[in-house]
Amino acid sequence: MALNSVDDVFVGKLRDVLPAVAFLADPTGFLVEPRGRWSGQGVVVSPASVDEVATLMAACFEHHIAVVPYSGGTGLVGGQTVADGPVPVILSLARMNKVRAVYPDENVIEVDAGIILADVQTAAANVGRLFPLSLASEGSARIGGLLATNAGGLNVIRYGNARAQCLGLEVVMADGTIWNGMSRLRKDNTGYDLRDLMIGSEGTLGVMTGASLRMMPRPANEATAMFVVQSPAAAVSLLSLAGERLGETVTAFELIHRQGFDFLNETGLEYKAPFKEAPEWSVLMKIGLPTGQSAQGALEDLFEGAAGLILDGVIAQSGSQARDLWNIREMIPEGNRRIGSVSSHDISVPISCVPEFIAKAPAILAEIGDFRINCFGHLGDGNLHYNVFPTQGRNRADHQDQRDAIKTAVHDLAHSFDGSVSAEHGIGRLKVSDLETYADPAKLAMMRAIKDALDPRGIMNPGAVLRA
Amino acid sequence: MALNSVDDVFVGKLRDVLPAVAFLADPTGFLVEPRGRWSGQGVVVSPASVDEVATLMAACFEHHIAVVPYSGGTGLVGGQTVADGPVPVILSLARMNKVRAVYPDENVIEVDAGIILADVQTAAANVGRLFPLSLASEGSARIGGLLATNAGGLNVIRYGNARAQCLGLEVVMADGTIWNGMSRLRKDNTGYDLRDLMIGSEGTLGVMTGASLRMMPRPANEATAMFVVQSPAAAVSLLSLAGERLGETVTAFELIHRQGFDFLNETGLEYKAPFKEAPEWSVLMKIGLPTGQSAQGALEDLFEGAAGLILDGVIAQSGSQARDLWNIREMIPEGNRRIGSVSSHDISVPISCVPEFIAKAPAILAEIGDFRINCFGHLGDGNLHYNVFPTQGRNRADHQDQRDAIKTAVHDLAHSFDGSVSAEHGIGRLKVSDLETYADPAKLAMMRAIKDALDPRGIMNPGAVLRA
Repeated sequence: MALNSVDDVFVGKLRDVLPAVAFLADPTGFLVEPRGRWSGQGVVVSPASVDEVATLMAACFEHHIAVVPYSGGTGLVGGQTVADGPVPVILSLARMNKVRAVYPDENVIEVDAGIILADVQTAAANVGRLFPLSLASEGSARIGGLLATNAGGLNVIRYGNARAQCLGLEVVMADGTIWNGMSRLRKDNTGYDLRDLMIGSEGTLGVMTGASLRMMPRPANEATAMFVVQSPAAAVSLLSLAGERLGETVTAFELIHRQGFDFLNETGLEYKAPFKEAPEWSVLMKIGLPTGQSAQGALEDLFEGAAGLILDGVIAQSGSQARDLWNIREMIPEGNRRIGSVSSHDISVPISCVPEFIAKAPAILAEIGDFRINCFGHLGDGNLHYNVFPTQGRNRADHQDQRDAIKTAVHDLAHSFDGSVSAEHGIGRLKVSDLETYADPAKLAMMRAIKDALDPRGIMNPGAVLRA
Repeated sequence: MALNSVDDVFVGKLRDVLPAVAFLADPTGFLVEPRGRWSGQGVVVSPASVDEVATLMAACFEHHIAVVPYSGGTGLVGGQTVADGPVPVILSLARMNKVRAVYPDENVIEVDAGIILADVQTAAANVGRLFPLSLASEGSARIGGLLATNAGGLNVIRYGNARAQCLGLEVVMADGTIWNGMSRLRKDNTGYDLRDLMIGSEGTLGVMTGASLRMMPRPANEATAMFVVQSPAAAVSLLSLAGERLGETVTAFELIHRQGFDFLNETGLEYKAPFKEAPEWSVLMKIGLPTGQSAQGALEDLFEGAAGLILDGVIAQSGSQARDLWNIREMIPEGNRRIGSVSSHDISVPISCVPEFIAKAPAILAEIGDFRINCFGHLGDGNLHYNVFPTQGRNRADHQDQRDAIKTAVHDLAHSFDGSVSAEHGIGRLKVSDLETYADPAKLAMMRAIKDALDPRGIMNPGAVLRA
């Protein structure tokens, strides 16, 4: 079914049913993809309530107008940006940005979908609780987008990704119907799990307008360590050992390669070097224990007990030392940006396959050309950011024609381990063909059937996840 | 679209494509609902592989024959039993009951869907891991059914329900297509979450044939206590305090009412009384800590710190004392059975609403008649088994005509708190009209659209969850 472009007549109709303040004079900020890969198009409408969203959706449904839900705009796969085709409505959630209610005793917080992640973290902290979702863009990413893309981040090993934080949703469907699924229940087995279907559907099935989120107790004692490990295989063994000793109290378990340190040095980013020489492989880990036990002591015990796996280590003796260690991890992406990657990948493989993946990939890439590799990421989740860079003195433009081959080689290798070509960033528009290449055809057929069933006119974020 | 009954001609066709051993001579055990409420009908076929299941499904699809997936048969809402209408194939998973692979380092176990829960627990224990799903029927319930109904149980507060234990699925769709979603990945954001859509769909969208499950580290130090609390409100405050002090290490948090003890006494069930007098309200809690801290000590600290909430308490000093305490909780359902409930309910409300629910319900029931109430269950999840019994000297038959009024009163009250009328048992055939009464119409419409999209001929467990 063909979609129509938004035109002045349609905008006039919207202005009849929505307040003037919902229409943005300057849509500039909503048309730029964060990495500047392409420019979008669209008319931005910013409703202030679920009823206004429903009104907007009903109008778009009636007139066959595409709707692109726009949250924080921090996604890296183009889910929020339409470069061509019929001009869509860009539905900004920025004005629906409030905490609706907080229930400390039951560890629940209800929010508008447009609230910024950092504001949810603060609201939870204000009642002595933790909202554990944490990632680089937390100062601008909004909950609706984080849930729509099932965002990951640093603490997934302990707390799960965005999906795991969500108890309920309020969603406006393609035809303007409101589904009130704002549940505070921990258990509810009444019918299909529409919540999890919406989460991760990247705005292609409906528009989230509200979310009921779970909070967690705040760990009483936290500690951070950087351990130098013999190899990725030793890192996996250390992860397993840490689980045996420390249970679910491991909050983060990040793998870092020497290349990350080298890039910080090369691009002049400052950090406190934890070791005399940058280690070939290291692990940055954080634990958080309940009342009554020293987290530092637990990391010291782990260090002692893992003698064969750990070559050297630093256990932070203060909050500021811990911040210095985390600062390294957090600056690695900035170092990468300054060098300029030829191709970046967000892959995952079964955790025990990580060493073999890391062992095999360089030889495959060497057949394509001469590159530097920065392999780092969330080892606790089997999720590697496997990024490929030019050698010193060359730049990404020199390798333009090799980019597709690199991407295909890395994705093929991940797929050969039953891995994922998008562990935490989603499909958006950037990886639609990857999904078509690697996904089980039965899965694709089911996805298409569900899309057609819930969005029969194809107006919800067309071209994202599934081809329009 | 009308369904056809299985007849000899169709069975003959099946016998042409499936081995003789897949056909059960005596279907008796598959036609009885566990509480004996009604008898089912059907021809039992028990394939031994995903390919055989696919062959069976393709034949049923072609001939418009209904298929009822049958797992352990322990469900209490009639999801596995069809009493009337066209005679279905009952697809037993009993012959697909193997562990496929175990990956201790990544805490993953892959199994056939027909494996019995206790066998998964054992396989995990054999590699020093925990498979945390635990419930009364674990000796006969099978993984496929547990996932299809998103089963709960005792450890949900810490580990989540069946959904949370599942990383991936192998599913045969209505037309015989095999979806291989047996992922061992912790993170994979490539497309819609079909796994969670299948989980909890009670066999109405497809047949699970395999599952990839997560295992957990085994807590190094466990301890159990029974605390006498002032009131349900004090129990909720204690739960909150326990979370603040002990974090995610609270494994179980069960509310028990004096009526439970009274029924054990009345029906001659033996137990070790933890207190001189059976307490009006008590909490049975279990914690599991990582290496290096005394779990008993942590419970003692909690007892000290909760002086205003706890009136009395017993902290088990040995494994056998802990088992004695858990024995009480585990015998309560048997006590209930011996008394014979007029109406039993599996409801949940937001945790902080539990005290008000418990305060309001008796007065509402008193308007219907004179009853005894045994209210107990998983307070940590807001999930109460709110069961209504005759007074002494009367029996359930005396109250036959009040049963519907009681059920409606309890469900209406739960619903008034935005609660659930099926917290952990599912909809099956028993609660289809409850779902229609209480669910958001937008949710019902989406469920119907998805059902029609994935099961266009309506052959998958017709009449369960949604009306056939």
